[in-house]
Amino acid sequence: MARPTPLSGFPEWLPDGRIVEQHVLDTLRRTFELHGFAGIETRAVEPLDQLLRKGETSKEVYVLRRLQEEGEDGGKDSRLGLHFDLTVPFARYVLENAGHLAFPFQRYQIQKVWRGERPQDGRFREFVQADIDVVGAGDLPYHYEVDLPLVMAEALGALRGIGVPEVRILVNNRRVAEGFYRGIGLDDVEAVLRSIDKLDKIGPEKVAALLVAEAGATETQARACLDLAAISGSDATVIDRVRALAASHGVDSELMEQGLSELGQLIEAAAVRAPGVVVADLKIARGLDYYTGSVYETVLVGHEQLGSICSGGRYDTLASDGANTYPGVGLSIGVSRLVSRLISAGLVTATRSVPAAVLVAVANEDTRPASDAVATALRSRGIPVEVAPTAAKFGKQIKHADRRGIPFVWFPGADGPDQVKDIRSGEQVDADAATWAPSDEDRWPRVVPAAG
Amino acid sequence: MARPTPLSGFPEWLPDGRIVEQHVLDTLRRTFELHGFAGIETRAVEPLDQLLRKGETSKEVYVLRRLQEEGEDGGKDSRLGLHFDLTVPFARYVLENAGHLAFPFQRYQIQKVWRGERPQDGRFREFVQADIDVVGAGDLPYHYEVDLPLVMAEALGALRGIGVPEVRILVNNRRVAEGFYRGIGLDDVEAVLRSIDKLDKIGPEKVAALLVAEAGATETQARACLDLAAISGSDATVIDRVRALAASHGVDSELMEQGLSELGQLIEAAAVRAPGVVVADLKIARGLDYYTGSVYETVLVGHEQLGSICSGGRYDTLASDGANTYPGVGLSIGVSRLVSRLISAGLVTATRSVPAAVLVAVANEDTRPASDAVATALRSRGIPVEVAPTAAKFGKQIKHADRRGIPFVWFPGADGPDQVKDIRSGEQVDADAATWAPSDEDRWPRVVPAAG
Repeated sequence: MARPTPLSGFPEWLPDGRIVEQHVLDTLRRTFELHGFAGIETRAVEPLDQLLRKGETSKEVYVLRRLQEEGEDGGKDSRLGLHFDLTVPFARYVLENAGHLAFPFQRYQIQKVWRGERPQDGRFREFVQADIDVVGAGDLPYHYEVDLPLVMAEALGALRGIGVPEVRILVNNRRVAEGFYRGIGLDDVEAVLRSIDKLDKIGPEKVAALLVAEAGATETQARACLDLAAISGSDATVIDRVRALAASHGVDSELMEQGLSELGQLIEAAAVRAPGVVVADLKIARGLDYYTGSVYETVLVGHEQLGSICSGGRYDTLASDGANTYPGVGLSIGVSRLVSRLISAGLVTATRSVPAAVLVAVANEDTRPASDAVATALRSRGIPVEVAPTAAKFGKQIKHADRRGIPFVWFPGADGPDQVKDIRSGEQVDADAATWAPSDEDRWPRVVPAAG
Repeated sequence: MARPTPLSGFPEWLPDGRIVEQHVLDTLRRTFELHGFAGIETRAVEPLDQLLRKGETSKEVYVLRRLQEEGEDGGKDSRLGLHFDLTVPFARYVLENAGHLAFPFQRYQIQKVWRGERPQDGRFREFVQADIDVVGAGDLPYHYEVDLPLVMAEALGALRGIGVPEVRILVNNRRVAEGFYRGIGLDDVEAVLRSIDKLDKIGPEKVAALLVAEAGATETQARACLDLAAISGSDATVIDRVRALAASHGVDSELMEQGLSELGQLIEAAAVRAPGVVVADLKIARGLDYYTGSVYETVLVGHEQLGSICSGGRYDTLASDGANTYPGVGLSIGVSRLVSRLISAGLVTATRSVPAAVLVAVANEDTRPASDAVATALRSRGIPVEVAPTAAKFGKQIKHADRRGIPFVWFPGADGPDQVKDIRSGEQVDADAATWAPSDEDRWPRVVPAAG
């Protein structure tokens, strides 16, 4: 085997990078569980026809086939593809298990997803998503559209300590957009949303041209859409500004009014529960056609060019088997994009690259059992420990610890007591494996903001 | 979408099953980290030519292609397959990152793997493996062949509390087998190992026939192989019995002697460090051709028919780029098989199906902010909490908690103090969200042996 090279779009972390990622995942999980979300995992594959229900992303699906399938299975498995998000599989899981779930059902799900996109601009072909959703049976109270983005704000806020920048959650409501577009005479709502969704990438002039070319808009209608998209703010005046704009175009839409009322509630509640975090931004469109109410995007303040790291919205018909419908609302964090940014921008670092706080030295191979016994005693009290790989000179064993960032080296006593050395300070003291412990700070590797 | 049905071979757990699986994974991770193993993850895909190096399993590989690849990429990705274990990807990771790793490198890796086998007999097409391996640069001391199975014994032993049966680790040494086979004149060692590996499935008579038919053995040679495979024991006499058998066939093999010396050391050390756990069993073959020293299988005592739930061995040339070789030793737990068994045999249960210990009731939607404030106060002290989905009658809210196994319902006081009710006992007391806490037992869902 020649030395292999990385596959573009399939990120892997070195052990210290994985410590960062694991810390992020543990922190998210804890917040989700404190809010009562149950963890589930779904299989990585779904029938291809389910995956293709979301037209736009179909091109990104990886299809599976068994290497030898022709001879054995008649190609049955060729109808399976890898999931490209966790929302579609979750909807399927809910339908499949509805009889065993208690509704409203709140779940979090942290798994890899795959998209066969061209790897570029920080886009990955394999990446980790962390999702929360709540679905009801038949209906779902509106307050969850307020609650869920705030849970995500709290989860991401819990990462501030390691140097994750402040987040800003940008919210909009599909009903506002749809009511407004229809009110000014644009009925191909999806085409309008797809064009508006490109605002940050191509700018207002090109979006105006797109609206004319692809959504059948006049110049005036296109201008009205851009005027709506330009409205943003974090207090109730934003609602008034939308109403004023709508009135100036003669829009009279019940749908828009319902959306504005919801959007107003969201901003108001968020201003109380998480001041400064949630901003109404009427340009937020989200490409996906299954959203029916609130939609969300999240940017890191100061890193807006990274795009949204946490997006989602309300959906009403994603999980439906005809007889029963399970409306939901959810958001998804792009964990790999976030972790990749934290590492590549040098924002965070791990205090060491291995779990062990202590390396137990081995004087010679005959006394290895004594070193193993020390390690067992320390581990039994929850202290992570390695035993030296060989009975090399102690200087080499200390170097082994130093290279990994292990702070302590333990020397089992031949005749006298054991000793433990803090190799950072050089301080060496008598120690008993039945009672000694490192400080809480040193016990496990920690993730901290990088210096400078 | 019609109501979907499960895909055979792709297991998914309901929320309470996932609590069991998550508990198993958390427990394994903690043990691995206490022993200094660093966690890594590798991408799910590997180049197909790497996956096919292990001839025997090639038929099980799932190959990926992008749904639209012909038009875009010229089919480049058709050379990627999903990994079917974590050893091959780890070997590739070590070669790719050798310059950034400190050796000996100890890692654990917990991920899903995929095999396109016919789903039957508890075999899955997608399942979770939990692996530990240590690799050296150039060489690797023998003591790791003793250490690693004992780490696995400890990890599995940490699950005894939830009802996982006692484990027995069966060990053998490839050198013993190879030296013996060659010593009696059988040079197609792999063919012999493949036949012996089927002993538990088809019995000694059919294995003897296989040895004759496929390994070119005479009746006498076949009988000698079966006699060797019949030897097992947990003390040094097992070594003597192998020597006696070899002598009776005139075998004089340095390779076998080296293997016996290693096997003897392993049994001796294991008897001290984990009495009763490790048994030498000369029939353990392991189908994979990359093992060169110790090989391991693990059975649950009383559930031997389940087969091995944790297997592995020593390998010398798996990770080699020609210039550098990284010999290793590792074991892999089949987590899905274990968890599936725990759940289907009714051995374990979760104390509830959701994380929340407390449901905060909502008297009416106008007072929801007060209920949210109680939840925030409790969560800030690490207590998992749900807020009632609607301001239904309290009886219905209590039922909501009861259906999920949430033990406490909290009633924010309108004029007087808040109250909290233990819905199991019916006891209801005044409580302050700034100070009240559930017992440690009730705080998080726990996994416990199932009654009966």
